[in-house]
Amino acid sequence: MSLPFPIAGSKSELEEGGVFTPRFDADGLIGCIVTDARDGAVLMFAHMNEEALRLTIETGIAHYWSRSRRRLWRKGDTSGQRQSVKEVRTDCDQDVLLLKVEPGGDGGACHTGRRSCFYRRLAGGPQSVTLVFDEK
Amino acid sequence: MSLPFPIAGSKSELEEGGVFTPRFDADGLIGCIVTDARDGAVLMFAHMNEEALRLTIETGIAHYWSRSRRRLWRKGDTSGQRQSVKEVRTDCDQDVLLLKVEPGGDGGACHTGRRSCFYRRLAGGPQSVTLVFDEK
Repeated sequence: MSLPFPIAGSKSELEEGGVFTPRFDADGLIGCIVTDARDGAVLMFAHMNEEALRLTIETGIAHYWSRSRRRLWRKGDTSGQRQSVKEVRTDCDQDVLLLKVEPGGDGGACHTGRRSCFYRRLAGGPQSVTLVFDEK
Repeated sequence: MSLPFPIAGSKSELEEGGVFTPRFDADGLIGCIVTDARDGAVLMFAHMNEEALRLTIETGIAHYWSRSRRRLWRKGDTSGQRQSVKEVRTDCDQDVLLLKVEPGGDGGACHTGRRSCFYRRLAGGPQSVTLVFDEK
């Protein structure tokens, strides 16, 4: 196989095949769950376009597509939180990726300065949902 | 706060506030990373619309929106893999959720019969990417 990526086949090929046919959405993006390869903690969620995915595979360093800035983004270039990619997985219908990374710099991933973007949990009942800061 | 959910405020309120203002996309959906509450394994990725999120919060059982079937979906109704939600988190800009669940039935989450949807990893170099089945 050579890049760019082949077109997805049948449902059976998608789910039980050995060919990587990532399914980009109508905006040309695929979602990426990013976990810390050391302990499995979920660090962040981001998107890749085809070029970001190709560069990630070629270099072993995570590249994303910034939807807010509308540009390719090699994470860590300004923050130092460069992500060395240890493993890439895809899900049954190949429209989401799971990256296991070793973050550089301070070991974090969130632009707010926290390790993980998921630093708040929902608390309270259905009529009084609040967000509680809880970096565990 | 009462449901439906309030509208997102400023960037600062989104990131550093205690008010849950989930940001649904143009299709009215928000992405959900689902992990096993027992060991943190990433099981699946799905979407919720506002009703699915409301029902999940109200009942403690994960509800999703099936994009392929275009209908609300209480996971486990046919498979037995009902998900008891132990914790819900959101990310810095509140456009993704992280659910920690205890799956019922056989303990799995993937419709292919596997525990996790992420049962294949990328292998090979940039010029020869393949998918390897690896349920670890």
